[in-house]
Amino acid sequence: MSAVDVVIMAAGKGTRMKSKRPKVLHTLAGRPLLRHVLDSAAALGARQVVVVTGHGAIEVEAACAGWAGAGVQKDSNPAVQSVRQEPQLGTGHAVQQAAPLLADDGVTLILNGDVPLVRPDTLRALIAACGGERVALLTVDTGEDAGAYGRIVREAGAPAGADAPVHAIVEAKDASAEQRALTEWYSGVMAAPTRLLKKYLAQLDDRNAQKEFYLTDVVKHAVADGTPVQALKIADAVEVAGVNSPQQLAELERQTQLRTAQALMAAGVRLADPARLDVRGDLTCGQDVEIDVGCIFEGRVTLGDDVRIGAHCVIANAQIANGAVIHPFTHIDGGQEGAQVGPGALVGPFARLRPGADLGAEVHIGNFVEVKNSTLAAGAKANHLAYLGDATVGERVNYGAGSITANYDGANKHRTVIEADVHVGSNCVLVAPVTLGAGGTVGGGSTITKSTPPGALSVARGKQVSLPNWQRPTKKPAADKAS
Amino acid sequence: MSAVDVVIMAAGKGTRMKSKRPKVLHTLAGRPLLRHVLDSAAALGARQVVVVTGHGAIEVEAACAGWAGAGVQKDSNPAVQSVRQEPQLGTGHAVQQAAPLLADDGVTLILNGDVPLVRPDTLRALIAACGGERVALLTVDTGEDAGAYGRIVREAGAPAGADAPVHAIVEAKDASAEQRALTEWYSGVMAAPTRLLKKYLAQLDDRNAQKEFYLTDVVKHAVADGTPVQALKIADAVEVAGVNSPQQLAELERQTQLRTAQALMAAGVRLADPARLDVRGDLTCGQDVEIDVGCIFEGRVTLGDDVRIGAHCVIANAQIANGAVIHPFTHIDGGQEGAQVGPGALVGPFARLRPGADLGAEVHIGNFVEVKNSTLAAGAKANHLAYLGDATVGERVNYGAGSITANYDGANKHRTVIEADVHVGSNCVLVAPVTLGAGGTVGGGSTITKSTPPGALSVARGKQVSLPNWQRPTKKPAADKAS
Amino acid sequence: MSAVDVVIMAAGKGTRMKSKRPKVLHTLAGRPLLRHVLDSAAALGARQVVVVTGHGAIEVEAACAGWAGAGVQKDSNPAVQSVRQEPQLGTGHAVQQAAPLLADDGVTLILNGDVPLVRPDTLRALIAACGGERVALLTVDTGEDAGAYGRIVREAGAPAGADAPVHAIVEAKDASAEQRALTEWYSGVMAAPTRLLKKYLAQLDDRNAQKEFYLTDVVKHAVADGTPVQALKIADAVEVAGVNSPQQLAELERQTQLRTAQALMAAGVRLADPARLDVRGDLTCGQDVEIDVGCIFEGRVTLGDDVRIGAHCVIANAQIANGAVIHPFTHIDGGQEGAQVGPGALVGPFARLRPGADLGAEVHIGNFVEVKNSTLAAGAKANHLAYLGDATVGERVNYGAGSITANYDGANKHRTVIEADVHVGSNCVLVAPVTLGAGGTVGGGSTITKSTPPGALSVARGKQVSLPNWQRPTKKPAADKAS
Repeated sequence: MSAVDVVIMAAGKGTRMKSKRPKVLHTLAGRPLLRHVLDSAAALGARQVVVVTGHGAIEVEAACAGWAGAGVQKDSNPAVQSVRQEPQLGTGHAVQQAAPLLADDGVTLILNGDVPLVRPDTLRALIAACGGERVALLTVDTGEDAGAYGRIVREAGAPAGADAPVHAIVEAKDASAEQRALTEWYSGVMAAPTRLLKKYLAQLDDRNAQKEFYLTDVVKHAVADGTPVQALKIADAVEVAGVNSPQQLAELERQTQLRTAQALMAAGVRLADPARLDVRGDLTCGQDVEIDVGCIFEGRVTLGDDVRIGAHCVIANAQIANGAVIHPFTHIDGGQEGAQVGPGALVGPFARLRPGADLGAEVHIGNFVEVKNSTLAAGAKANHLAYLGDATVGERVNYGAGSITANYDGANKHRTVIEADVHVGSNCVLVAPVTLGAGGTVGGGSTITKSTPPGALSVARGKQVSLPNWQRPTKKPAADKAS
Repeated sequence: MSAVDVVIMAAGKGTRMKSKRPKVLHTLAGRPLLRHVLDSAAALGARQVVVVTGHGAIEVEAACAGWAGAGVQKDSNPAVQSVRQEPQLGTGHAVQQAAPLLADDGVTLILNGDVPLVRPDTLRALIAACGGERVALLTVDTGEDAGAYGRIVREAGAPAGADAPVHAIVEAKDASAEQRALTEWYSGVMAAPTRLLKKYLAQLDDRNAQKEFYLTDVVKHAVADGTPVQALKIADAVEVAGVNSPQQLAELERQTQLRTAQALMAAGVRLADPARLDVRGDLTCGQDVEIDVGCIFEGRVTLGDDVRIGAHCVIANAQIANGAVIHPFTHIDGGQEGAQVGPGALVGPFARLRPGADLGAEVHIGNFVEVKNSTLAAGAKANHLAYLGDATVGERVNYGAGSITANYDGANKHRTVIEADVHVGSNCVLVAPVTLGAGGTVGGGSTITKSTPPGALSVARGKQVSLPNWQRPTKKPAADKAS
Repeated sequence: MSAVDVVIMAAGKGTRMKSKRPKVLHTLAGRPLLRHVLDSAAALGARQVVVVTGHGAIEVEAACAGWAGAGVQKDSNPAVQSVRQEPQLGTGHAVQQAAPLLADDGVTLILNGDVPLVRPDTLRALIAACGGERVALLTVDTGEDAGAYGRIVREAGAPAGADAPVHAIVEAKDASAEQRALTEWYSGVMAAPTRLLKKYLAQLDDRNAQKEFYLTDVVKHAVADGTPVQALKIADAVEVAGVNSPQQLAELERQTQLRTAQALMAAGVRLADPARLDVRGDLTCGQDVEIDVGCIFEGRVTLGDDVRIGAHCVIANAQIANGAVIHPFTHIDGGQEGAQVGPGALVGPFARLRPGADLGAEVHIGNFVEVKNSTLAAGAKANHLAYLGDATVGERVNYGAGSITANYDGANKHRTVIEADVHVGSNCVLVAPVTLGAGGTVGGGSTITKSTPPGALSVARGKQVSLPNWQRPTKKPAADKAS
């Protein structure tokens, strides 16, 4: 089978987006539209990708360069080149710009940078329909009126059906009444032998109302040349839906999210409400995972067996081990370092885990607790109103309510080490660098600036005194009433 | 063109609301139903408004009085009078109560206080159809069965169409089979020359099954009198939908919110899910604004260019400047004073800004931090578990985790001043009134009761001591097991 | 009327659930599917229930045993027995296992453990249709194609209608074209005189493609025996919808939640969005209750008159008295002990109430405050960043920001008593057991280890000193950049 070279049309302005950002760089399910298309090209095993840029070319080209070396597929990603289309004289003109970069021996697959959801399996079938010798069009037939789309006119005399060769694509406005009634329309996706494609591209002209070079005219020249034009017909219009406005972007986002939700449920994940789940990246789930309403997953998230995620959680770049329970209103973002939640751990509600949070088995992180760049060994607990940053916390440590690791001296970050079985009282400050020896206790309200011996009770606080019959201040007439 | 005087029917009980509150004072998109109608009257440039009250008259009249002098339109709001309908003998009887307050030279527009979404443009068209000499009815034709609504019967012999004069309104239960099949129905909104309206109102009688004076009988008297009756037909039933139950209120709320979402998207705002946005007031957005799922906006909120609002935020009465990022689970309510978030500021997750919070450029407010009536200059940071109330915070101040301004002495509020470049350590208490001099440092765990010199390190804490080989308490047999 | 004995089919594997948990133990609206069915049996006043178990029999039988003695109906719950079906040879075979436990004098009602929403009223009507002498089938006719369901064929010659006796149930795959067009189908729910049921069960055979004993063959034998077969036809397919996959479970969950929302609104509760409410238990509401978007209620929750629940709250096992306001992002879980919120109290945003939290009238609990096993008397306030655990708090106490009850000494829990009118400053630690005498004041930043006299000002903190011209640390070249 011939090598596949992909051309991605990414020059459009996207005026209706009303955005400074180029249209193809708007995100769907957490990835730029263009990246969805690039990832599809990679999934196909394309030999190379040529992105035709125009509006916002610099940002689009930077995104392509970023993609080429990024992600898990970086070793297998096809080479990406960009070519600028300036001025922009139509879809055929766009592909003409790419043509010099395409080797004659391959098949060219033409995709649109603002059509993110076309499935690699569909594209493989289209390439098979091309077979290295035919022009193959991806068409849609939902059985409903085709609206403004170009109608697919099959060859006269041939039986109606998917296999009858295509005679022409007729624009809606040029269509006869009979043609307008046709419900099969062209999606904008095409595959063709590169050698033939170049020949027909060279024959395009702009003698039409728009004074543009239309890619669809390739069909006319192929038919005239005796090259068969095949259509691969699908029924799912979402797969080839384009994004031209925030409304369309939002609609496609919902469609994508619902498909993700369906796929998760089919794999056994229990969702309290499939319409209130947002996955913007890769969510991998074990068996018997339950996810409550209003949750958002970003980046790479792995949930082990029996994990339960409470309502209204935001979880990014994290690995959550078997049996862990994440209570509502928990915010986890592991960033590039990632965050780990150990087996059977309990986190939240109102907890926040930041990059480098690494919780061992059965660790408890409670309400209004923040953990950053810290390791908590099995059974450690920080249940209330606390901050653990740049800390190494031993097994079974109890870290008191309101206690803080003072990890930042205004210039540098330092580590706090809390050895196994230490109990830190409430509202303590641990001024790093400092080590609390194993089995020690820190009295509530202490500011610890020096390391403490194992097994000791360490305190640093003032003596309690009482001044009897103390008169509290009284309300001033003009006092600020705000509270 | 004649002056427009508006009569609003607001006497109904709303039994199905099952509420102590009068029906027209229930809120839709943050405003009482009646206020939607009053605002429409103001938008039309009505000369005066007469509100017919009955059930809950005292509260309804108070709401009218409040509206007359409230809001941004207070200078241009028409005069509002109320008239009580007691007893309540039908819709015609309601308007009869208002008639003495209406000058003969005008056009009277009759609206319903529980029909909140009728658009000023539609009303202007209705007034034009009236033209100061005809009775004009707002009608709806969705092409579907008109159910229990009164059918619009056009004049016999006239061609079917929007312009044929109306012959009669026929109640569904009185309609012939042919009339029942008519899909155009009367919305309850009418405009008529006041002079003629008064004449026909005087002709109404209650000789019917309900023993009520029906406003719709005005049509009969107009036709008999040779006054043309015109219909302005719309297709959108939502515009004239009434609220009679919590279900209908919820349905209309969703319709309203979806329309708001569509309008925001059409202006370029990117919404993660249009079905999960609630705007209860005025939301003004710059370019490239992104709003994640589950957000609620109340009162007046302005979002500058490139602002990003994370999931599940509640934001009221706030101005958020260009490039600011509001992370998930942030609660901002500026109240009457308002709250300001400066350009490039980062707020949240789990942050709360209260009235008078004024954050400068690039300020960071992190998790579990509350700011009230405080100004933070550019670059100041309070990243963790802190309270800033009645404080003036200078540029680049770092306000440590767990630190608190003790602004309340039990009777009065006092200010805390933290000058530029001060670093406040963790778990400090700043007992106001107090000033921390520029460039100073406060050691972690200090309670600061006196102002500190610039550039100094100030501490107030106990000496750290350790008691070796300390025996921790042991579990008592009958101890409370709760945690 | 004959006593009713219920057989619940609960032996199925539920392969598509992809779960270790038996299918009938998956939860819908907070209750296991089987429990919905058991509760329906109890509501009917069934004499006894026989649950046919198979896959996951041990867990299912444990759930039955748990139900028998649980909940408010525990005294009136019918006796529950289980019988195992091993191997599983079809629906008729399942009921055959139960037959020996059924007394001949009763009526047997056959339900499915994975069909949770059938209404007791419907079942009562079915039992009435049985009348102790007929076989009665619950059938569905939505007027749409019956898909793969078994068609109900009425007696030839009888007029079409609900009352014509049933001639046969014909499987979809065995149906003639004419039979396939029938829109009435069998739901799987049946009632029959036990004596006759046993007779027909004994006549079942497995001479069919699946080699299974079909319960539906009972109809054939009844007809042959001259026993009338009646159908009770309903139009609501949701009532008899089964759960075979996470998708179906999610769909039924949404249907159930929407029905709950509709019922609440019909009772006068105002919901900001009926599609974003989750009730997993019993929610009882007074008059003029308002519930904002994204709220979840679990267990038994009572909301008094005029209660307002802000957006994104999670509330379980709590009683919230008249006029209380719960601000957004509040998490209340009273657990077995329950939580109480007094009249006019204000809670949240970002507050958490745990088991044993008991707030009096007008109590204020503010942001980032946690209350556990503590009583707060009228007018007490804890507005910011605080923890109250195992505390008794008097009237009008002001509990300062950042203050903590150190209730846990590492082994045991102790109580803190704060008498009326005490003011506790910011960032205090109250080391329990300790009592703060009435009207006293605790200075900010104090760690209180001994009880304090009434009316006194008590402090325990270090003396404030300043070290002038202090040089802050400077950034090390290789310092950790994370924050």
